[in-house]
Amino acid sequence: MKLTLPPGLSPQNFDAAVKALQGAVGADWVMTSDADRDAYADIYAPGPEDVWPASGAVAPHTVEEIQAVVKIANQYKLPLWTVARGKNLGYGTSAPRMPGCMVLDLGRMKTIHTLDAELGYCVIEPGVGFIDLYEEIQRRKLPLMMSVPGNGWGSVLGNALDHGIGYTPYGLHAKNLCGFEVVLGNGDLVRTGLGAMENNHAWNLFPFGYGPTWDLMFSQSNLGVVTKAGMWIMPEPETSLELNLDIPEAEDIGWVIDTLTPLKLGGIIDQSIFIPSWLGKMVIKGQRKDFWDKPGAIPEWRVKELLKQYKLGYWKVQIRVYGDENVNKAKAEVIKAAFRKHIATPMEEVWWRRGDPTNVMDTTLGVPSAIPLQMGDWVGGRAAHLGFSPVIPATGQQVLGQLKRSRKIISDHDVDFYASFTIGGRFCNNVNMLMYDRDNQAQVDNMKKLFNALIADAKANGYGEYRTHLGWMDPVMETYDFQNNALRRMTEKVKDALDPNGILSPGKQGIWPTAYASQRGKALA
Amino acid sequence: MKLTLPPGLSPQNFDAAVKALQGAVGADWVMTSDADRDAYADIYAPGPEDVWPASGAVAPHTVEEIQAVVKIANQYKLPLWTVARGKNLGYGTSAPRMPGCMVLDLGRMKTIHTLDAELGYCVIEPGVGFIDLYEEIQRRKLPLMMSVPGNGWGSVLGNALDHGIGYTPYGLHAKNLCGFEVVLGNGDLVRTGLGAMENNHAWNLFPFGYGPTWDLMFSQSNLGVVTKAGMWIMPEPETSLELNLDIPEAEDIGWVIDTLTPLKLGGIIDQSIFIPSWLGKMVIKGQRKDFWDKPGAIPEWRVKELLKQYKLGYWKVQIRVYGDENVNKAKAEVIKAAFRKHIATPMEEVWWRRGDPTNVMDTTLGVPSAIPLQMGDWVGGRAAHLGFSPVIPATGQQVLGQLKRSRKIISDHDVDFYASFTIGGRFCNNVNMLMYDRDNQAQVDNMKKLFNALIADAKANGYGEYRTHLGWMDPVMETYDFQNNALRRMTEKVKDALDPNGILSPGKQGIWPTAYASQRGKALA
Repeated sequence: MKLTLPPGLSPQNFDAAVKALQGAVGADWVMTSDADRDAYADIYAPGPEDVWPASGAVAPHTVEEIQAVVKIANQYKLPLWTVARGKNLGYGTSAPRMPGCMVLDLGRMKTIHTLDAELGYCVIEPGVGFIDLYEEIQRRKLPLMMSVPGNGWGSVLGNALDHGIGYTPYGLHAKNLCGFEVVLGNGDLVRTGLGAMENNHAWNLFPFGYGPTWDLMFSQSNLGVVTKAGMWIMPEPETSLELNLDIPEAEDIGWVIDTLTPLKLGGIIDQSIFIPSWLGKMVIKGQRKDFWDKPGAIPEWRVKELLKQYKLGYWKVQIRVYGDENVNKAKAEVIKAAFRKHIATPMEEVWWRRGDPTNVMDTTLGVPSAIPLQMGDWVGGRAAHLGFSPVIPATGQQVLGQLKRSRKIISDHDVDFYASFTIGGRFCNNVNMLMYDRDNQAQVDNMKKLFNALIADAKANGYGEYRTHLGWMDPVMETYDFQNNALRRMTEKVKDALDPNGILSPGKQGIWPTAYASQRGKALA
Repeated sequence: MKLTLPPGLSPQNFDAAVKALQGAVGADWVMTSDADRDAYADIYAPGPEDVWPASGAVAPHTVEEIQAVVKIANQYKLPLWTVARGKNLGYGTSAPRMPGCMVLDLGRMKTIHTLDAELGYCVIEPGVGFIDLYEEIQRRKLPLMMSVPGNGWGSVLGNALDHGIGYTPYGLHAKNLCGFEVVLGNGDLVRTGLGAMENNHAWNLFPFGYGPTWDLMFSQSNLGVVTKAGMWIMPEPETSLELNLDIPEAEDIGWVIDTLTPLKLGGIIDQSIFIPSWLGKMVIKGQRKDFWDKPGAIPEWRVKELLKQYKLGYWKVQIRVYGDENVNKAKAEVIKAAFRKHIATPMEEVWWRRGDPTNVMDTTLGVPSAIPLQMGDWVGGRAAHLGFSPVIPATGQQVLGQLKRSRKIISDHDVDFYASFTIGGRFCNNVNMLMYDRDNQAQVDNMKKLFNALIADAKANGYGEYRTHLGWMDPVMETYDFQNNALRRMTEKVKDALDPNGILSPGKQGIWPTAYASQRGKALA
């Protein structure tokens, strides 16, 4: 990809900034060739990837190098786009929101500073991937069980900071974060929570500060560069029992949610409960063309045939309880009794005991995997996916309402319907996976229309997205409109106060510094 | 108390501001007589209460009135000190940090906007007290169980915002907060989290925002006036089992913590486990003079006699499990087995089942009470208490270390030792209650020396306080010294950006706006 300069930066100053960066981190770690820029492009971009071009990337290795990079960026007004490992697939990977940003790649920050099995936590840098941390836990034979998302080679911190979700009792990854070290836009190094005291023992254990609590100010955020953070890890349970059940009809999701939510709030089920629709199982069995060889969405009669042929329900409910064997047995009885009120099929029961082997599909046992990404291949070609992800209260009525509306819109756009609901507490994350061939212009155009229609429909009905792709960050932020976007205005005041030159990730999640406010609404999908 | 004007405000402008406030909220709700000022003084002040004098109080009734008050405060540079119900006993009650602030009393904001038993949450205003909410739940016969602190007539939101703790699975009150409505220093009204979207259904259910998450920026904070907030409430369990055990020796706290922490992290015990030392039980039986009639700390031999006479252990462990009866039974077996490894005494078991009566002492069953405040009377006279409250990792070694050090310092100052540890997760809140007679100058002087010694010792050993009295807000903030107080500097930048005139609660928790930065370090205890 050819060089795109950031707004307002001359080629001469860009070159000078690159030289200064080379001095700070070493010439090998400042990457500005056309091939380098390709490497940081969005491989799932809806349409051409050069809508969101980086001017290059810089990969510091230490906190001091990050501070030096930030200082140079301020000096030359070179905007940076921070990524941890850049695996934010479906949301932009490592590409910047604003064309011409230099990617600040933290992939070399891979130190595990603390890994404590007694209190169940670690202090890690953003370059540490799920697989890295998993392997270190295995190597040291520590009784800890991680929570992992569908993409195991991403960053543990990066995923949590973007509000990623997993499927154990620690599945709300951002809730496990405790105590950050952050480089601010002015180069200052701060530690949040009790870490604001040098050498405080409880920094990564106590979730509040003395005074205002700031941790999650740095999630989905451009207000600082997180250089390390504490993260809680679940002690490895002695046993775990999986209860599996196929649920036949799409509309059954209503009673399923109304059955699960009280069990979750009542402490019977601690995990984040993932309920995918049938297509989530089919994408692993093959490609779309193996099951339906015509364009357009698979018709309902064929869906029914496939469910029968592959012995699938419309939904798959997989519940896991973790801990003492007798407690798990007692919990299982409560769960089975609750489901028996609605469905005669018994639940399949699969026990795991400490020391038993796990396999690469056991994301609910904390084993990192990339198999769920298989869905990217569903449509064939240079395949990709977008995730439409509104947050819905965990009631059958509201979930069923959202399901019906989004299914109709997706069906009206002749696209295969693949939804999942993950009950994380009093809410569900509803992720609608939209798969397409990036090189099929008609599909890309249709996908964009569909995505806009879904956002508008959710907004009209009182639901918002929890996360979105670069190309929709501004439109989704527009839907957060209380008091004329008062919260965005507040956040942007804080942005300007902490990063006066606006050099950190301008435009991330729709937050623009004054320095680049003219870019708002540009480079949309 | 006579009128003290805030720094830089002339009597004429103060009078004009008062008139404007009367116009905004009605003359009855602007209180500026000497008697009014007395009513807002710190009834537990260490020494004379006029170290922290309010110039008066204003009590708006609606969000619009709060916005009007903030506008007037900006116009006249009249600093406000926000309180919910002003019951922050031991930390300053409703008195302001900076002399002359006008108390912004939100006690009239008493609306319960939402009280939802299906998803277990409420949306309430700051004037709603624990007793108010409890009575409304009882009146509507809703299957919800609150978490309450020792002082039941305080504000539900005020307590949570100051990081108050209770003793159920929802005992970390600030963690139950979800979705705020806030008036900023410039009068803007914002809603955090998904509430940034008008009419979003998941505002008070989903704990993050789209973009940075701000909720706890407004806890222990002077960055805005919280006008309402969502708060999660535990669904009422079907049963609860209490397991009681007296622990004989002070040093036993080490193995007690090492027994409880794995049970807490392993999901066997969900509640915040409160472990008070013996004096916590004695303060309810009478006054100090009933047990020891000489000045100075009760000597150890007499403590041993009292424990024997009243059949008390040095520590009282009261564990509660909540939920399904069979699950609770299975959990109890795990807990009992863990304690049997250390002590032969069987645990007392007390069952509660839904519908059983509760009594006013059942704080672990969510019944608001004020009986723990009885400790205020221990020493007699115009009695008061201070709480020295460092946060300690939940390991036996660290807890025992803190216990030994703080007990020695307290003993060296000839003051009765009353400690409690509450395991809230991977940490303990260690609260050391220091009781004294406000009118005994020698006691007050000794108490101040003691408090300073405790802060310095904790800091030297890597522990910080989670909360403190007005008179120590600056010194405690000084202990948060990483990178030359970098976090305080960051917070103060945000303060200036959101509240340029610094009119909201200047000095709260050691955060000073530029407008009143000259007051830092003044009016200490």
